[in-house]
Amino acid sequence: MVSCPESSSPLQNLRSCLEKRPVGLVGLGLIGGSIGLDLKALGVPTVALAHRARTVDRARQRGLVDVVSTDPAVLREAGLVVLCLPLDRLLAPTPQLLSALPRQALVSDVGSVKGPVLAAWQAARPGRFIGGHPMAGTTAAGVDAGQPGLFQGRPWALTATEATSSADLHLLEALIGALGARVIHCTAQDHDHAVALVSHLPVLVSAALLRTVASEQNQPIRHLAESLASSGFADTTRVGGGNPQLGVLMASHNRYALQQVLHHYRDSLDTLEDLVREERWDPLCAALQQTRALRQKIVSP
Amino acid sequence: MVSCPESSSPLQNLRSCLEKRPVGLVGLGLIGGSIGLDLKALGVPTVALAHRARTVDRARQRGLVDVVSTDPAVLREAGLVVLCLPLDRLLAPTPQLLSALPRQALVSDVGSVKGPVLAAWQAARPGRFIGGHPMAGTTAAGVDAGQPGLFQGRPWALTATEATSSADLHLLEALIGALGARVIHCTAQDHDHAVALVSHLPVLVSAALLRTVASEQNQPIRHLAESLASSGFADTTRVGGGNPQLGVLMASHNRYALQQVLHHYRDSLDTLEDLVREERWDPLCAALQQTRALRQKIVSP
Repeated sequence: MVSCPESSSPLQNLRSCLEKRPVGLVGLGLIGGSIGLDLKALGVPTVALAHRARTVDRARQRGLVDVVSTDPAVLREAGLVVLCLPLDRLLAPTPQLLSALPRQALVSDVGSVKGPVLAAWQAARPGRFIGGHPMAGTTAAGVDAGQPGLFQGRPWALTATEATSSADLHLLEALIGALGARVIHCTAQDHDHAVALVSHLPVLVSAALLRTVASEQNQPIRHLAESLASSGFADTTRVGGGNPQLGVLMASHNRYALQQVLHHYRDSLDTLEDLVREERWDPLCAALQQTRALRQKIVSP
Repeated sequence: MVSCPESSSPLQNLRSCLEKRPVGLVGLGLIGGSIGLDLKALGVPTVALAHRARTVDRARQRGLVDVVSTDPAVLREAGLVVLCLPLDRLLAPTPQLLSALPRQALVSDVGSVKGPVLAAWQAARPGRFIGGHPMAGTTAAGVDAGQPGLFQGRPWALTATEATSSADLHLLEALIGALGARVIHCTAQDHDHAVALVSHLPVLVSAALLRTVASEQNQPIRHLAESLASSGFADTTRVGGGNPQLGVLMASHNRYALQQVLHHYRDSLDTLEDLVREERWDPLCAALQQTRALRQKIVSP
């Protein structure tokens, strides 16, 4: 267990907690690469395990981390390892990965669903795994996607449990603070319900909008609709036109919460549709005033 | 009737068609102000009728048009008048406005629904009204909202009828071409169905998503969801958090088409929800691949 005195900045805290050990990253895609770039800029030593030789070459060219290799031994000195893997690989870790994680290291992840991740990893790293989820992203993926400052000002959920030591939590909070993100503590179950609402439901709602245009039977009208689509349509359909594999991973590993919020979404849409059918324009206006106020509160606080 | 020889550029065509008469604008909000700024930059003479003295003052300060007044007589020399009014005022023109439109002028509009506009204006200007709808916008409104280049590369729907003369159509096409927009010809009915799909349906779909978060009964989860909402949620909810009055005007004046596409939307969402409930991940992935391909085709051609 690393001892970790309180000091004045997240970066100083991180240095104290790590005691000169490097931060290890597993995977150098958008999230892993972005963490690497920021830590290198801060002068925090970094090592990374990559899956493919091509990723290693490109990561060296881009200078994503100090040391990168396909050899799991690269992680052996790490004081903290962040698993930056796609959800399917995170949920079915290879024996090679499990044995490459050094005994002294706290392990965390960046997966977008937390219940199944905790179920898989709490057994593998009893008391030394903390689930994490940075709420930052672009549509880019792969070793060229990482960018500096990706986490600046963004929320980063942590799902510590009763088994988590305060020293481990302090270390991970220091890392997140050094990256400029805001820690939000929650249970894995609450996290999964919340992201079903604001992240997974929007994907299906948005995809259904695209399907509605695609299934328009009148072909001239469909072509006209495609020609007239403007920035509002582009924004509303962005996440529904995103990475299909990612959408399926989210839906399959958060199915229960997603079905719950889909049910509530249907009720919400019914209410608005009823107001239109019944030509109740004043209540519709009031409803749209409420949604505008809610969005202003959430999106531009 | 203005005669209108074909020449080499939209701007030259516009000048020939106008025969030194100015373009008249009624209303100097986002659309009217943006048309004015571009025409002034092109050296095309412009006059504008504004509703309020304060708008006249501000329009003069901003140099939106050559001449602006609250006196309807300002329009008397215009060869083409574009009504840039909110839908409700467009659909119930005052006697003062109707009598201010000079006999020689072609009249067009920029309203977001075309059936009711044609019904109101074809009687008022027999054979000399062409419905129009530029697909360009920002969230800004009012006399400070107009900006140069707003229509560059954007579609601009025109709903000419059998009563439209080719000279009138040529004049309006020249204006739109000079503003850098692309003319798309369609019937009012097809236009209203198409914008129900890509403009009015997204407002309700997006508003329902905000309502779903707002109606989450578990308050800690609702607060967590609001904290974790990221750029995907912001994009998907932008139009649902837009101007409530505009949303109601669109819904009320395009109710029939909106209800039709809402019905189809429900089917599309049902299909996706069934795939999730039945854990049919390969078909869900195929569906999301289709929506991604469709969006790429529509949004980034």
